[in-house]
Amino acid sequence: MSILIINGPNLNLLGKREPTIYGSDTFEDYFQKIQEEFGQIDLEYFQSNHEGEIIDKLHEKGFNIDGIVLNAGAYTHTSLAIADAIAAIKSPVVEVHISNVFKREQFRHHSFISSVCVGSISGFGLDSYRLGIEALIRVNKKI
Amino acid sequence: MSILIINGPNLNLLGKREPTIYGSDTFEDYFQKIQEEFGQIDLEYFQSNHEGEIIDKLHEKGFNIDGIVLNAGAYTHTSLAIADAIAAIKSPVVEVHISNVFKREQFRHHSFISSVCVGSISGFGLDSYRLGIEALIRVNKKI
Amino acid sequence: MSILIINGPNLNLLGKREPTIYGSDTFEDYFQKIQEEFGQIDLEYFQSNHEGEIIDKLHEKGFNIDGIVLNAGAYTHTSLAIADAIAAIKSPVVEVHISNVFKREQFRHHSFISSVCVGSISGFGLDSYRLGIEALIRVNKKI
Amino acid sequence: MSILIINGPNLNLLGKREPTIYGSDTFEDYFQKIQEEFGQIDLEYFQSNHEGEIIDKLHEKGFNIDGIVLNAGAYTHTSLAIADAIAAIKSPVVEVHISNVFKREQFRHHSFISSVCVGSISGFGLDSYRLGIEALIRVNKKI
Amino acid sequence: MSILIINGPNLNLLGKREPTIYGSDTFEDYFQKIQEEFGQIDLEYFQSNHEGEIIDKLHEKGFNIDGIVLNAGAYTHTSLAIADAIAAIKSPVVEVHISNVFKREQFRHHSFISSVCVGSISGFGLDSYRLGIEALIRVNKKI
Amino acid sequence: MSILIINGPNLNLLGKREPTIYGSDTFEDYFQKIQEEFGQIDLEYFQSNHEGEIIDKLHEKGFNIDGIVLNAGAYTHTSLAIADAIAAIKSPVVEVHISNVFKREQFRHHSFISSVCVGSISGFGLDSYRLGIEALIRVNKKI
Amino acid sequence: MSILIINGPNLNLLGKREPTIYGSDTFEDYFQKIQEEFGQIDLEYFQSNHEGEIIDKLHEKGFNIDGIVLNAGAYTHTSLAIADAIAAIKSPVVEVHISNVFKREQFRHHSFISSVCVGSISGFGLDSYRLGIEALIRVNKKI
Amino acid sequence: MSILIINGPNLNLLGKREPTIYGSDTFEDYFQKIQEEFGQIDLEYFQSNHEGEIIDKLHEKGFNIDGIVLNAGAYTHTSLAIADAIAAIKSPVVEVHISNVFKREQFRHHSFISSVCVGSISGFGLDSYRLGIEALIRVNKKI
Amino acid sequence: MSILIINGPNLNLLGKREPTIYGSDTFEDYFQKIQEEFGQIDLEYFQSNHEGEIIDKLHEKGFNIDGIVLNAGAYTHTSLAIADAIAAIKSPVVEVHISNVFKREQFRHHSFISSVCVGSISGFGLDSYRLGIEALIRVNKKI
Amino acid sequence: MSILIINGPNLNLLGKREPTIYGSDTFEDYFQKIQEEFGQIDLEYFQSNHEGEIIDKLHEKGFNIDGIVLNAGAYTHTSLAIADAIAAIKSPVVEVHISNVFKREQFRHHSFISSVCVGSISGFGLDSYRLGIEALIRVNKKI
Amino acid sequence: MSILIINGPNLNLLGKREPTIYGSDTFEDYFQKIQEEFGQIDLEYFQSNHEGEIIDKLHEKGFNIDGIVLNAGAYTHTSLAIADAIAAIKSPVVEVHISNVFKREQFRHHSFISSVCVGSISGFGLDSYRLGIEALIRVNKKI
Amino acid sequence: MSILIINGPNLNLLGKREPTIYGSDTFEDYFQKIQEEFGQIDLEYFQSNHEGEIIDKLHEKGFNIDGIVLNAGAYTHTSLAIADAIAAIKSPVVEVHISNVFKREQFRHHSFISSVCVGSISGFGLDSYRLGIEALIRVNKKI
Repeated sequence: MSILIINGPNLNLLGKREPTIYGSDTFEDYFQKIQEEFGQIDLEYFQSNHEGEIIDKLHEKGFNIDGIVLNAGAYTHTSLAIADAIAAIKSPVVEVHISNVFKREQFRHHSFISSVCVGSISGFGLDSYRLGIEALIRVNKKI
Repeated sequence: MSILIINGPNLNLLGKREPTIYGSDTFEDYFQKIQEEFGQIDLEYFQSNHEGEIIDKLHEKGFNIDGIVLNAGAYTHTSLAIADAIAAIKSPVVEVHISNVFKREQFRHHSFISSVCVGSISGFGLDSYRLGIEALIRVNKKI
Repeated sequence: MSILIINGPNLNLLGKREPTIYGSDTFEDYFQKIQEEFGQIDLEYFQSNHEGEIIDKLHEKGFNIDGIVLNAGAYTHTSLAIADAIAAIKSPVVEVHISNVFKREQFRHHSFISSVCVGSISGFGLDSYRLGIEALIRVNKKI
Repeated sequence: MSILIINGPNLNLLGKREPTIYGSDTFEDYFQKIQEEFGQIDLEYFQSNHEGEIIDKLHEKGFNIDGIVLNAGAYTHTSLAIADAIAAIKSPVVEVHISNVFKREQFRHHSFISSVCVGSISGFGLDSYRLGIEALIRVNKKI
Repeated sequence: MSILIINGPNLNLLGKREPTIYGSDTFEDYFQKIQEEFGQIDLEYFQSNHEGEIIDKLHEKGFNIDGIVLNAGAYTHTSLAIADAIAAIKSPVVEVHISNVFKREQFRHHSFISSVCVGSISGFGLDSYRLGIEALIRVNKKI
Repeated sequence: MSILIINGPNLNLLGKREPTIYGSDTFEDYFQKIQEEFGQIDLEYFQSNHEGEIIDKLHEKGFNIDGIVLNAGAYTHTSLAIADAIAAIKSPVVEVHISNVFKREQFRHHSFISSVCVGSISGFGLDSYRLGIEALIRVNKKI
Repeated sequence: MSILIINGPNLNLLGKREPTIYGSDTFEDYFQKIQEEFGQIDLEYFQSNHEGEIIDKLHEKGFNIDGIVLNAGAYTHTSLAIADAIAAIKSPVVEVHISNVFKREQFRHHSFISSVCVGSISGFGLDSYRLGIEALIRVNKKI
Repeated sequence: MSILIINGPNLNLLGKREPTIYGSDTFEDYFQKIQEEFGQIDLEYFQSNHEGEIIDKLHEKGFNIDGIVLNAGAYTHTSLAIADAIAAIKSPVVEVHISNVFKREQFRHHSFISSVCVGSISGFGLDSYRLGIEALIRVNKKI
Repeated sequence: MSILIINGPNLNLLGKREPTIYGSDTFEDYFQKIQEEFGQIDLEYFQSNHEGEIIDKLHEKGFNIDGIVLNAGAYTHTSLAIADAIAAIKSPVVEVHISNVFKREQFRHHSFISSVCVGSISGFGLDSYRLGIEALIRVNKKI
Repeated sequence: MSILIINGPNLNLLGKREPTIYGSDTFEDYFQKIQEEFGQIDLEYFQSNHEGEIIDKLHEKGFNIDGIVLNAGAYTHTSLAIADAIAAIKSPVVEVHISNVFKREQFRHHSFISSVCVGSISGFGLDSYRLGIEALIRVNKKI
Repeated sequence: MSILIINGPNLNLLGKREPTIYGSDTFEDYFQKIQEEFGQIDLEYFQSNHEGEIIDKLHEKGFNIDGIVLNAGAYTHTSLAIADAIAAIKSPVVEVHISNVFKREQFRHHSFISSVCVGSISGFGLDSYRLGIEALIRVNKKI
Repeated sequence: MSILIINGPNLNLLGKREPTIYGSDTFEDYFQKIQEEFGQIDLEYFQSNHEGEIIDKLHEKGFNIDGIVLNAGAYTHTSLAIADAIAAIKSPVVEVHISNVFKREQFRHHSFISSVCVGSISGFGLDSYRLGIEALIRVNKKI
């Protein structure tokens, strides 16, 4: 089973950026941990600050992988193009957010992406990714 | 460790109501399964169609339990009183939804409850509850 | 043939409350009259000021009765949970209002319930209920 | 007793137009049936696709007839002029719709006409007209 | 002279819930104090988390008491049914709030209840109730 | 000098319709009076309930007359087509209203027509037309 | 007969300010002309850039003068206090504007003042004042 | 192959009206040119300022013609009745506009008609009609 | 203890202006009564129709007085500058209104001032001021 | 004559993505066909999922080519930067869409791009591009 | 070269009012410093809490001074009359704000004044004024 | 001291694009001038049409430079991701605009970026950048 984790803009700064909101771990450290935890799964990681690169990656992987865990960051709220890419591909996509976006500014409450994903998970810190992988495992069992 | 699952209005009809959206399992069957799966956790279940009874239950349990998994059903979108009850209690609450509410009518996109819960999980069918329990296990580890 | 009439909040005050809008007959008097008028129909009456009790009643009766005439009163405009209950049951539901809600305040112009009912009747005083019963008789003929 | 039925734009296509929504009977067939059914009432029928002609007809008949059953079709949602005509005449007007307009597009949920009519009936197919006539019979009894 | 104080949802937690906003006194302690202070008035107290029970209580008392001090809590902002109950009864109702609701979230700025009450008092902590009683004493002098 | 007065829908009922708002004079009586008063002006009068006929008349006269006094009635608020006709012709058009539209319903506060007319006069009863003619006399002096 | 003309903010610059919109005559020149034209009327003129001074003047004159012609300038669109003053006094007030406000920015389309004035006249340049005086003459004839 | 061109209100003034926006050709001249250009197609032309006449024409031709090119003018933005007529008929309809409506006023950006037409073409001057005919030729090839 | 009462625009007309809404007592009479009633308090009174004078007075007194009872009249709904003045001073300010503003026009439901005052009291006629003074006495006890 | 076709995000998936909406032809196949059909025109094709690359291409070509046919995909609805690029270049741009965007979700009804393009064509499947080229041929004849 | 600095309501409290937002310097101290710094410029200072006085000052100086630095305080967001005064005068006006208004409440994000000023500077504390003067120096070089 | 100037989309066309709005100088010429003027500062310049590249550059420089002058062009109004990047870095950012954005289209009045920048400067042509640098010099003095 193969799962791709995609992180959107500014998530490369994790551990550096606003640690009171996002915590002080880097995502690379965390990724190593969950690779060990989910040893039987082929986990891959991609980060980009470019809307277009995220779309390219969704196209490249989205027809031959078992699932995608996507934290689109700020593009969640502004990118209809990423939403269209998710709708266009075959692999199921789970939307995740580290923080509870509904506790933050009003413009973070609307997501272009939610309605084209299988489901959404938000607010559990980095554990949101882990729950996203577990959700994809179950989604694949049903298919 | 003790966790309470609360289901709001119309969720007693699960298995009977609109099976194309909600599936044909009853919640009681499902609850038995997850009780077995999470044998080490003291799981309790409560359902009511009454906004007031859900508030009463949150008050009763919300100061001495390790977590609450809440599917408030339609009250998610109309009950500020339940949201205030969640904010008033001590136990962490995880919001869950069976369907992906963002694929449904516009008025189901707003939740009074999201901003006072630890986090939200939606769209994974009955597995949303299971993920909710797993999320609470991790939330408790951090406290 | 069996039909249930449900009256929502404050309709127990009929005859007492704002008689210039709602008339001075009590609903009990009126119910007796229409029981005589529709002698061949098994008519039942239920009133509650509790959103949850109306949902419970819809669940209890809505799988084995030929139709429901529902005046949800103020819950018409605020209760998504009652609307979900109507959508979940089998019996056809007709929405009725005593006054012409469109002559009243702006917030009474939106109904959560209209879109899940068979049809709506408003503005004919207590006769709205009688027309609701006649409508259900015809709806049943077509089924 | 004399009642006029007015049908607005596109209702001349009944039986031809979108039969899944409006049924396959022509209105003329149906009108013959209700003329027989309400033998004691002087029933008249008028259809026009012209907003101005509907206003002219309301003016012509609206001071010497016992009631009007009006399905203003799309003009329901756009014609303040027809609403003003209804407010200006003496005869009571009942608004009817074949389909449940609240199950359709958002812009069909607002009616300029509802607030100046005695009452509204929608969603019962062609039976909406029959119920409209019955409603007018009762309205006249009270005057 | 007889006055009823009604507290809505979550106000049973007073002293427990968000003390930085609502203070740490329980309402029962406070009620005892104002009973002593207004010895000549027959003061009664009712609290419920159930919208329907608040409506029932308003109906029960609202035709034979000299005034009602109502803190409807979150129902202030969502319950048209309670507003209709206030409009339907005879006794004058004064709306009170412990906190200054206009310093809080946007959705707490709209009240369904204000326009059917005699007047409103908010922001003076528990003293809002005391001022509500004094207001009712004066309202009664004028009747 | 030649001036055309155009009255829109329902204004043929003047004297009959809602006399508390519009007075009890018929427009024909009034027109005779102002014809005498403005003896030196070639005054013409046209009324129609048909949006299309008003447009046709504006086209027919609007290239060879010295001014038009237009009370478009309800079409003021809904007819972009009449506004386009006014913009397309050469003769200056003055918008008049008998009642003060700003004292009436919200939807009568917006006018499609105001921005393409020379000016607007409202609220002076039938005198609004007289002031409209006087305004056109002055407008023509300046050209 | 006595009439007061009040000009609001920036109208003292008439002739100086944006002459393409407001013309190049000063209001004082114009006032002299209309004083001659309406020799039989006691005409008075007041201008202020201060909202409070306009209110003071309305209070001072508004109980013993036959009418007021008011061009409130920008306060038309922002001053509820002037509107309240107009509602509070006895003398009829006519709202005038030099330019056609509906041809200008969106925020100039709403007037706080229109609904409390007898009527409104806009778009006829300085002639709007002359028409305002004529309107007040007729309004007084009817009283 | 037979195609009908329908022009809505004010388009009879083409060549006369606002030539900076619409050009100075009359539509009749242009129609003759495209009749020659598309010699093999049976082209017909209809213009009306009456909403009702446009609906009548759509009904008359819309069940036995190969396509309709419709420039509904201002009715594009206000006529739900024409939109319903297009939805009710069989012939495919192409929406055209001479000017680019999106460069004009905000209220011209919404079209009731677009969603029930096959497609839309706007901004190419009179060539929009020619492109509309070409579009219908291709649409018919596919049927 | 020293308290200043400030009345905003048009409140100098009390007793004269719209007595059905505001009663027929002048404020000066009333002020004398409450001076006697609260003999131990140094009560001062200030009224102005000028937004700027109210700000000047708030600055002058707001750093050395025990409280201010403010009825800002129409400025309540339009003056951010007065709200900023209240936020800038030290003395606690209580907002009062004679009428229940929520029973009046929509634009009177929003207050710029509420969120910077200690609390609000409205709807009790002139007694609103008396309750405001009592509220300030209690507020001072807590400081 | 030289024309560039630009396709925006996800249009590289044509033939693969949601074939019920977009058809099953790839754009490359279609491009070859229209190259043959318009043999005399120098046709070029560019696709990118990157907003920035589309802007770069518009800058590179937009000062020395005879026209651009642009299907900006989802960027149509979100990219003000592409709209600014179109406004900044010299070559005329025609907006095209394969599907009728007005039949789809509400957020696809607004285009940032329409108002800066010569014109728009939507709803004719891949033929929208062909009509776009024909439109540019005519636009160039006029220049 | 002559420049006038105008400060609007509550800015006389600088140093006293909310020092965490506005700093603890008085404006008079600061004004002395910048007078020294810009020795070659004739700097003048005016402060008022009265909208009308600010308009009067703009009229008095705005035809014979080289520039105005205006911090209109709360009037920025509510005064169309000041905006009209700026548009009416000759001297260029630069809008300044001490705090970054976009970090504050929503209603401070809209400025009536920005669109009639040369430019805007906000967020640099008292340095915003200094930058405003430098901006006017450059603006004057270009004239 | 080191300062980076970042220009967003289409600003590479400066001197070419809409010179009536943006002037005819290229930014490179201007940059050379200000490098000479601020000889003691290490000035760097970066331009990109790619949202992602602007974010990458902000990340790369934003932890070790003394300030950034950012003209995000159209991304100002659409890019939450750039706003998040600004919030995430350490260096102070000043927002600048060449034109007065408040004189342009409505959608250019909202900035995602303003609230996370130190301050904003707009409307002074290329001098806005110079003022931005001066502002950063002063901001650094205070740190």
